[in-house]
Amino acid sequence: MTEENLRSLIRQIVTECADTNADPNAIPIGISNHHIHLSQADFDQLFPGQQMEKFKQLKQPGEFASKQTCDIIGPKGTIKHVRVLGPCRSHSQVEIANSETFTLGVPAPIRLSGHLDGTPSVKLRTKDGEVTVQGVIVAKRHIHMSLEDAKRFGVKLGDTMMVEINSDGRHTIYDDVIARPRKDFTLEMHLDTDEASAANVKPTTVAHIIPRVQSTF
Amino acid sequence: MTEENLRSLIRQIVTECADTNADPNAIPIGISNHHIHLSQADFDQLFPGQQMEKFKQLKQPGEFASKQTCDIIGPKGTIKHVRVLGPCRSHSQVEIANSETFTLGVPAPIRLSGHLDGTPSVKLRTKDGEVTVQGVIVAKRHIHMSLEDAKRFGVKLGDTMMVEINSDGRHTIYDDVIARPRKDFTLEMHLDTDEASAANVKPTTVAHIIPRVQSTF
Repeated sequence: MTEENLRSLIRQIVTECADTNADPNAIPIGISNHHIHLSQADFDQLFPGQQMEKFKQLKQPGEFASKQTCDIIGPKGTIKHVRVLGPCRSHSQVEIANSETFTLGVPAPIRLSGHLDGTPSVKLRTKDGEVTVQGVIVAKRHIHMSLEDAKRFGVKLGDTMMVEINSDGRHTIYDDVIARPRKDFTLEMHLDTDEASAANVKPTTVAHIIPRVQSTF
Repeated sequence: MTEENLRSLIRQIVTECADTNADPNAIPIGISNHHIHLSQADFDQLFPGQQMEKFKQLKQPGEFASKQTCDIIGPKGTIKHVRVLGPCRSHSQVEIANSETFTLGVPAPIRLSGHLDGTPSVKLRTKDGEVTVQGVIVAKRHIHMSLEDAKRFGVKLGDTMMVEINSDGRHTIYDDVIARPRKDFTLEMHLDTDEASAANVKPTTVAHIIPRVQSTF
C-alpha cells in the first residue's frame, strides 16, 4: 500500500468514526454488489478440486469475498465474473440488484437473505462446471448491528426502522429497513447498487436513523 | 396494435386514472431513461440533411422521443443508441443515471434540467458526425404539474415536496422533489432508471405526496 493510499484510508476511517461518534443515530453504509453464496456441494461442482480462497475480508466478522467468481446465466442474459462470498452456507443463494432482473430475465423478489421459498432459478457456470441454483433474490435493505446497538435503538430482530440518507442532491428516506441484531455483528446498513446510485451514496456517506415519534399519552 | 396490447394499455390507463382520481395526493410516475436534448446546430452536425422525426409522443405536451439516436462517449466508456428527445432546445443537454457516471467516467452532478453551469462534457457520435457537448447531468427528481395542481398542493415553482412510493418490498420517501408547475404541464413525477429500480417502480406504481405538517399556532 502506498503512503497516499494509506493516508486516504486513514482519513476515511477517521471521518467514519467521527460521524458515528458524534451522532448516536449515524449508521455506516455497506454497498452490496451482486454476489453469490454457495453450498459446499455447489462450490465443489463449480470449482472441482479447489478450496475457497479469501480475497478480501468483509465488515461482518467471518464473512469474506473469495478469489472465486462465476457467471450467472438467465433466460435473457448473463452477468459475468460475479464474486462468490465465503464461507459456504447450507443453501446456495444469488443476490442481484433489481435492475439486473431485466438483464437476466429473472423475476427475483425482494427478500431477506435465506428467505428463498418460491424464488426463481439461474444457472451458474465456470470453465470447470455448471449448476442450477434455486434462490435468486434482490436483497431487502437491512441493518446489521450488535445486541448493544439493538438495545440502544430499541429494536429487535425483524423490526423495521426508518433511516435517511442526505447526500449531495438527493434526500432519501427508507421506511422499511429491517433490524438484524446478532452478538457478533458490526453496525452497517446494507444497500444494493441500485439503491446506492439512486441515493448518491459516496464512500464517506453515512445514514441516520429517524427515531419514530412515540406518544406519551 | 393487437387487441391484447390494446386491452393491456386501456387496463393500465384505467388503473392510473382510478388511482389518481381516488386519491388527490396520488402522482403518476414517469421513468426517464438516459436521453439527449440537442440544439438545432448540434442536431445538424450529428444528422446532416435530416429532420427530427417523431417516434413516440411523451406525456408532457409537445415533447416526443425522436427516431434519432446517437452514442455518448466518455473518457472511460460509451453508451450506445441513446434516444434524442424533441423538439430541439436552445442548448444541448445529456441526461444519464447516476450509475452511468461510472460507465462513462464523467462526474455529472445532480441538477435540474437547464442548470448546466460547470457540468462536464462528452462526445456525441453518429455514423455521420460528432460533436462535443458541455452539459451532462443526472436529473434532480421533480414533478411536472399544471397551475391548478400547484394551487391544489400549495406549492410554487422550485418548492421541494415530500413524496412516497410504497411498492412491493420497498417503501421509499423522497424529501426533495422539486415542483415544476407550468400552464401546459401534465401531472407526472420524473425519476431516473436508478431511482425506479431502487424503489421497485412497476408500470402501475403511483407515488403519493406526503403533506408537510403545518403548525396552526
